Amino acid sequence: MYVESLIRTTNNAHSSEVMTVPKILIVYYSRSGNTKKMAYLIQKGAMDEDVEVDTKDVKDVKVDDLKGYDGIIVGSPTYYGGPAAQIKDLLDRSIKHHGKLQDKVGGAFSSSANVGGGNETTVMAILQALLIHGMVVCGDSSGDHYGPVSIEEPDQRAERNCIRYGKRVAKLVKQLHG
Amino acid sequence: MYVESLIRTTNNAHSSEVMTVPKILIVYYSRSGNTKKMAYLIQKGAMDEDVEVDTKDVKDVKVDDLKGYDGIIVGSPTYYGGPAAQIKDLLDRSIKHHGKLQDKVGGAFSSSANVGGGNETTVMAILQALLIHGMVVCGDSSGDHYGPVSIEEPDQRAERNCIRYGKRVAKLVKQLHG
Amino acid sequence: MYVESLIRTTNNAHSSEVMTVPKILIVYYSRSGNTKKMAYLIQKGAMDEDVEVDTKDVKDVKVDDLKGYDGIIVGSPTYYGGPAAQIKDLLDRSIKHHGKLQDKVGGAFSSSANVGGGNETTVMAILQALLIHGMVVCGDSSGDHYGPVSIEEPDQRAERNCIRYGKRVAKLVKQLHG
Amino acid sequence: MYVESLIRTTNNAHSSEVMTVPKILIVYYSRSGNTKKMAYLIQKGAMDEDVEVDTKDVKDVKVDDLKGYDGIIVGSPTYYGGPAAQIKDLLDRSIKHHGKLQDKVGGAFSSSANVGGGNETTVMAILQALLIHGMVVCGDSSGDHYGPVSIEEPDQRAERNCIRYGKRVAKLVKQLHG
Repeated sequence: MYVESLIRTTNNAHSSEVMTVPKILIVYYSRSGNTKKMAYLIQKGAMDEDVEVDTKDVKDVKVDDLKGYDGIIVGSPTYYGGPAAQIKDLLDRSIKHHGKLQDKVGGAFSSSANVGGGNETTVMAILQALLIHGMVVCGDSSGDHYGPVSIEEPDQRAERNCIRYGKRVAKLVKQLHG
Repeated sequence: MYVESLIRTTNNAHSSEVMTVPKILIVYYSRSGNTKKMAYLIQKGAMDEDVEVDTKDVKDVKVDDLKGYDGIIVGSPTYYGGPAAQIKDLLDRSIKHHGKLQDKVGGAFSSSANVGGGNETTVMAILQALLIHGMVVCGDSSGDHYGPVSIEEPDQRAERNCIRYGKRVAKLVKQLHG
Repeated sequence: MYVESLIRTTNNAHSSEVMTVPKILIVYYSRSGNTKKMAYLIQKGAMDEDVEVDTKDVKDVKVDDLKGYDGIIVGSPTYYGGPAAQIKDLLDRSIKHHGKLQDKVGGAFSSSANVGGGNETTVMAILQALLIHGMVVCGDSSGDHYGPVSIEEPDQRAERNCIRYGKRVAKLVKQLHG
Repeated sequence: MYVESLIRTTNNAHSSEVMTVPKILIVYYSRSGNTKKMAYLIQKGAMDEDVEVDTKDVKDVKVDDLKGYDGIIVGSPTYYGGPAAQIKDLLDRSIKHHGKLQDKVGGAFSSSANVGGGNETTVMAILQALLIHGMVVCGDSSGDHYGPVSIEEPDQRAERNCIRYGKRVAKLVKQLHG
């Protein structure tokens, strides 16, 4: 079960304000390990923004977990121009909570075997699913515009873009759910 | 096992030409039955063109079957803007025969719950997968342009478009593989 | 020239806090009048949220205007599965301010001639452009998921979805730029 | 005016069969010259297949010209995830001949500034327009799957993929219209 994390701010004796630290889930499917590496680079970027981040293999994510996060970032290798069936299966089953993810922040990333190999369409396919859930997503005028992509193992460019994306999504989560 | 169907043409005593009747696979996933209905309407259209058509539930299709067809038409309900994981899983596993589906004819169709509900992006996602396999796909200047879509149960419009699409894809299969 | 609208809040004598009312631009291209009608329905929804809204024909929008808004919603008829060249031209020229639209809120809508006629791909094409600018966009778990679409003249369903979308985008603009 | 090219075959005295050499139009918009280079590489590949090829800047293409070709390959730089307005304008105006391009062969290519910069979505946007015209398009299981893409100036990889694509589309044109 998800337990919302609480921080009691004790600025002065009279106040007992309760603030929640926003929580982000990074869920990935990875066979070669490349998408997993990207997931942890994105986590690294997000952590800089003082949010809580859980990074999990899709097989360890229950569909009920999704409700417990303020931001959900989904990563998949590019298989035939779209996310792996394992990721699509989670998205399909998420219909159980359709409407309850509305206004949460979403994100997507992908690794693929080659340029022109469908990584952009994969990222867009994931973002489309998150938009259908009513989520809020952000692009980036620098780096990878729709979400980080890596050709094979993340190189320095991909690494930089992943960290940058993690920070960027985490900031948005804080603005909307901080 | 797939056995290629042969027809001996015996127009005259001297010839013993052997012609193969092109074969089309229509593979669908369906829970409500709407996508299945579309599959059989497309089959009806294709049969008019004197091709052989196998229409199968995705659970009854082995990835090795794909090689045995000249045309493959894939249908799925629209789940979160893309094909169901069950269909994506077949596409993902089809990598086993990557390169061997090159030049075959492809097609796609989808049923969804509402207008603007992602049916077009689903059809395009399937077509993208087939293009990555090197397949040949056709649009249509009338009817549903990318491939038949149905909102809920196929109505007369959807029925007409499915039959029309079946004929159209079958004709292309005959031209390229007849 | 764009002049930012200011509201002096005078909660008490000592403060002279200055708050800006967020501004949204709705820009459309319309030949039949359908996309224009959608634009004004979206405006109506946005106005409920106490933001300022300018609704303009694309021919009256200068690329320099874009910087002056906190939210930009772009509408186009669906021509061959994408936005009209007139809209694409504005998007292309917006490169002049690439990077300066980062973090603004974006939105998209489209009218088309028929179901399956490319309206979803048009909305997504516009959203992709806005994501490349680094903008923040939201989907909706009800109504039209990616952004309002209308088949021919907006009917009651489309009208409701346009108003709903206007409110929704305006709320996001207030949260991020209020 | 377009004059169909004729070749009189004179196999024997009694026959006067008339065969037409299929014609392909490669139309591009190019500012940096990269898309233009790709166009001529694709032409080079297509010429190997004994088809006639006209390669033209979009500004020199009249919408009435389109009808005179058996194959039409459209190239554009990637601007904000889609084709340039100049290319979109030709596609929009092609509605004049809607239905008359049915069954012709289509193709697309794009050059862009960086990986993940929208080149795939641009190629797909063009292919979608051609599918709406009822055209036939092919992917490739090797090389760039949807159509050639180049990051900046075409390198050896892009060069190889362009030539390969030209051959591939020309072969399909010959099969369907030879």
